[in-house]
Amino acid sequence: MIVPTKGEIDAPSSSRKNLCLSVVEPDIKDETSFQELDMILTQYLETLSERKKYHIGYPTNMHYEYHAILAPLLQFSLNNCGDPFTQSPVDFHSKDFEVAVLDWFAQLWEIDKDEYWGYITSGGTVRAISMAFWLGTTFKGAIDDLDFVIQTLEYCGYSNDRYYIHCDAALCGLILPFIRHAKKITFKKPIGSISISGHKFLGCPMPCGIQITRKSYVSSLSKIEYINSTDATISGSRNGLTPIFLWYCLSTKGHARLQQDSKICIENARYLKDRLLEAGISAMLNEFSITVVFERPCDHKFIRHWNLCYLRGMAHVVVMPGITRETIDSFFKDLMQERNKWYQDAKALPPCLADDFGSQNCMCSDSKMHN
Amino acid sequence: MIVPTKGEIDAPSSSRKNLCLSVVEPDIKDETSFQELDMILTQYLETLSERKKYHIGYPTNMHYEYHAILAPLLQFSLNNCGDPFTQSPVDFHSKDFEVAVLDWFAQLWEIDKDEYWGYITSGGTVRAISMAFWLGTTFKGAIDDLDFVIQTLEYCGYSNDRYYIHCDAALCGLILPFIRHAKKITFKKPIGSISISGHKFLGCPMPCGIQITRKSYVSSLSKIEYINSTDATISGSRNGLTPIFLWYCLSTKGHARLQQDSKICIENARYLKDRLLEAGISAMLNEFSITVVFERPCDHKFIRHWNLCYLRGMAHVVVMPGITRETIDSFFKDLMQERNKWYQDAKALPPCLADDFGSQNCMCSDSKMHN
Repeated sequence: MIVPTKGEIDAPSSSRKNLCLSVVEPDIKDETSFQELDMILTQYLETLSERKKYHIGYPTNMHYEYHAILAPLLQFSLNNCGDPFTQSPVDFHSKDFEVAVLDWFAQLWEIDKDEYWGYITSGGTVRAISMAFWLGTTFKGAIDDLDFVIQTLEYCGYSNDRYYIHCDAALCGLILPFIRHAKKITFKKPIGSISISGHKFLGCPMPCGIQITRKSYVSSLSKIEYINSTDATISGSRNGLTPIFLWYCLSTKGHARLQQDSKICIENARYLKDRLLEAGISAMLNEFSITVVFERPCDHKFIRHWNLCYLRGMAHVVVMPGITRETIDSFFKDLMQERNKWYQDAKALPPCLADDFGSQNCMCSDSKMHN
Repeated sequence: MIVPTKGEIDAPSSSRKNLCLSVVEPDIKDETSFQELDMILTQYLETLSERKKYHIGYPTNMHYEYHAILAPLLQFSLNNCGDPFTQSPVDFHSKDFEVAVLDWFAQLWEIDKDEYWGYITSGGTVRAISMAFWLGTTFKGAIDDLDFVIQTLEYCGYSNDRYYIHCDAALCGLILPFIRHAKKITFKKPIGSISISGHKFLGCPMPCGIQITRKSYVSSLSKIEYINSTDATISGSRNGLTPIFLWYCLSTKGHARLQQDSKICIENARYLKDRLLEAGISAMLNEFSITVVFERPCDHKFIRHWNLCYLRGMAHVVVMPGITRETIDSFFKDLMQERNKWYQDAKALPPCLADDFGSQNCMCSDSKMHN
């Protein structure tokens, strides 16, 4: 049935050279071949469970507890093909749940039910838009100042109908609304659309995104006769499970829990940034962000062990819900121990990150001299 | 927590006017609000279970039994972002399973491991390709004659490098290879790529597709620094659950079970077509197809009850795995009973479908006179 060519399932090493899995014709008379499948699955699940506490470099919230309750849905193949707001000719969809989720986001972003159109996608980030604003950039977690840009456009004489602003709120769209003093994401401002990821801050076992735009922009709906539905989505078949997962997650968390998660994550991110700076490690954290950027560790094994994301001389940790002070302390302790080895004989020196972090956040010897 | 504004969850009626679900702020002190969520889910699951036996009009195989075994995977957010064949910088992916599935299809379609590139998508059908061939068209299940087209291209002096053929095998890609006398889908013929749906004939609770092309066509891989991976996929984040579901399904079914499923489905489709024609109902069935097309029922309630798909004067049933003779007999009996009412006073007559079905398959009085 299965041919494991290595001793264990090692998720990270998935190159063509290191393949450890294949599909082999089953022998229905031989029970052991089916047991082998289960063994591989069990081993894979154990590896994932063990590795969960080291997953701190990417913005995925895996600390949800609803998977067992929703598991029976896997009996059905739910497909939300076509427009969420039109009647479906089949039973096996979850468009009621989808519209409930869309309505919740429409209310959060202050647009009337009759004024918006949207759908749940299989991803969050929108590429290739004419003018896009990032509410939490991928690497440094920076939040663009939307108000300033709108003011500038107005000052330069651009009326609303001469520009289109898309807000990519993939990660921070469920943090900023719950933080006092953070600028509001709202359709009361002259923006065209907002997208957000469902599998990031909120937490969902499948990639998904919520996309909402002003209804007035969705003029050319195309009728798909086969499914008897208009369709302005770009994806055709759409996963019917994700809307139910999002609906359940929002219904159990509510504003109160999301606000609590946001507050704790921002506090924990500040805690990590402060510990790094106090220990003489270059680090930065943008306002209202949960992405702590710091000096890139020298050892690739360390980077892999903590699932760190890196770019040039920088690495980052995204302090998501479920990443506790204990996890942060454990990471910090490990980093300090290893870092002492990397720089112990002073043959190598930590890099200067003044250009990336600002000199006040750079702890290299040059920057410290100038500060 | 939840505001049901109708007595029951009615999946089909998901128009803006009939919404029955919303997300309401939870009261964490009130246990009943959480019980309400569970009640809605239970009711929804019961409705789906009950409706399963009437799902005969769309090509979705829901007769799989592996959902309970794979449910623990929902604890993790698996994302196969980027190229399946390059190393992933994070633990939470299933690229080993993905490549195992791709290799299985590469072997089925006779292309060497080193000669192909592919990935698992969130859908099956490819739109807007330069020249596409359908192995199972959406409505009538027709299978294009690839050999004839290639011969014609050659006869007209077109060399292989002057055309690109994509084979859309969404539904029939796992039927034709197991049917003797059916023409082969193979990369030994001068085709460029093949796509197939995972949630159709094979059966998977989430929409997904397998896309395989010749490696030589994938020349411009774009490096995505954030995920440290090349990426020629068009979707960015990709569901990491579907490759494991497909891997498990293929590993337990194997060629033997797929061949058996194909044979039974084709036989059952012929059985339904014959019963319809014998009862004087216009019907047709393309060669090696499982899509039985017949005269469109007059009553919309009947169409909705059996989840039938319709187009102009036609409707169809797709005889998928799990649709038994008992289900077919039950549908046929119901159709005959209702049809007698529709045409009892001879005020209306069944439509002529000679143009769509050929006069030999049309049972209208005009066609019968000419036959």
